[in-house]
Amino acid sequence: MTYCVGLKIDCGLVFMSDTRTNAGVDNVSTFRKMYTWTNPGERVVVLLAAGNLATTQAVVSLLNERTKAPSERVQSVLETQSMFQTACLIGDTVKEVVNLSVPAGQKADAFGASFILGGQIKGMEPRLFLIYPEGNFIESGEDTPFFQIGETKYGKPILIRAYDPKMRFAETVKLLLLSFDSTLKSNLSVGLPLDLLYYERDSFKIGYQRRMGVDDPYLRTISTGWSDALKSAFRSLPDFQE
Amino acid sequence: MTYCVGLKIDCGLVFMSDTRTNAGVDNVSTFRKMYTWTNPGERVVVLLAAGNLATTQAVVSLLNERTKAPSERVQSVLETQSMFQTACLIGDTVKEVVNLSVPAGQKADAFGASFILGGQIKGMEPRLFLIYPEGNFIESGEDTPFFQIGETKYGKPILIRAYDPKMRFAETVKLLLLSFDSTLKSNLSVGLPLDLLYYERDSFKIGYQRRMGVDDPYLRTISTGWSDALKSAFRSLPDFQE
Repeated sequence: MTYCVGLKIDCGLVFMSDTRTNAGVDNVSTFRKMYTWTNPGERVVVLLAAGNLATTQAVVSLLNERTKAPSERVQSVLETQSMFQTACLIGDTVKEVVNLSVPAGQKADAFGASFILGGQIKGMEPRLFLIYPEGNFIESGEDTPFFQIGETKYGKPILIRAYDPKMRFAETVKLLLLSFDSTLKSNLSVGLPLDLLYYERDSFKIGYQRRMGVDDPYLRTISTGWSDALKSAFRSLPDFQE
Repeated sequence: MTYCVGLKIDCGLVFMSDTRTNAGVDNVSTFRKMYTWTNPGERVVVLLAAGNLATTQAVVSLLNERTKAPSERVQSVLETQSMFQTACLIGDTVKEVVNLSVPAGQKADAFGASFILGGQIKGMEPRLFLIYPEGNFIESGEDTPFFQIGETKYGKPILIRAYDPKMRFAETVKLLLLSFDSTLKSNLSVGLPLDLLYYERDSFKIGYQRRMGVDDPYLRTISTGWSDALKSAFRSLPDFQE
């Protein structure tokens, strides 16, 4: 499967994705699921992908090609007038790829892919979108400031409870790692290493990027420390009285 | 959907189940999913049910009828020689009901139901089983001391992290409520009230039973207290250093 999260905080956007792809548990590979396009000083676009790898790679390859050789017919992600138009463009590319992939008369479900899109264009606010396999999309709001794709369930409770828009980047990484750690522990089809990316509001460049593998000291600190912290939290609540 | 957990601790077995059933989000009802059969001083049998309500109710009705009017042909759950035989009996009843329900040539998936079975018969150990929609089953072991059915994902991380076989009943209720609270917050098809049951090892009677609704003071304490405790636990871990 896959697990990716895009999260909006007051100071910017934070993205995390795993790297495991699988066709059955006996056929496992490592692929990056985080893609970026930047025009430094003017725009940053970040895309996280889940679902059929052939579809997501084709979408990204088309987006890449059109960035390098922009045609009049199709805009590139570096030319769109707004992040909304960027989401439209990517949604259209998803539909294009799925239409080409699906044999006549068959259902498109097996070719499905979903995406988290985030970024900012100069003069506008940072924005975060969830693009569905059908190519349509929704935007995050104050009530729902993050999107998850792939194996979303195990890691959701901690996101709901501990998220605060005032969090700094350093705290947000901690929160995301806890969400990923819960998922890694429960679903074999989500796997290390993890890709982390921070976009700082109004910076129009990629702020921080890192790949965290099994040897990453901070990942290990959080994973082991959380068990103890959780047990203390558990003990701090009153026991049931019959 | 449904969420049920059966959990084995050194001092006995603890069961918790929600009560929401639904056919779409616009058709919601409350049904008890926890059933018991006891022969005080000799055996206690507890069954939790998830899946197609017509199937689970038919299984329980058949088990009940055969308890009241035991025939030579089919044993009752109060007559089996072991908990393993009880699990076989319930598995056979599941197959019987599904075979009767499924129109010829159609798939049985829509009629599927899964069960958690726990209990103890005098002279033997307490045992816990997970019965699949196909009627076959597995038994808990030291490595996997609990079973979940229904919406299992949201509530699993806390069970994995905080479970300890040495927990007392009062702590186990706390753990189960945290697991249920995470699930209730994330999936509308799991709903209050919750049913709680404790079977104390070698007691051969139901130890404690309670229904916990939205007004239950302990449930409210845990639900609100956990957010704060979790935030403290979160703060206690070191922030990420770039």
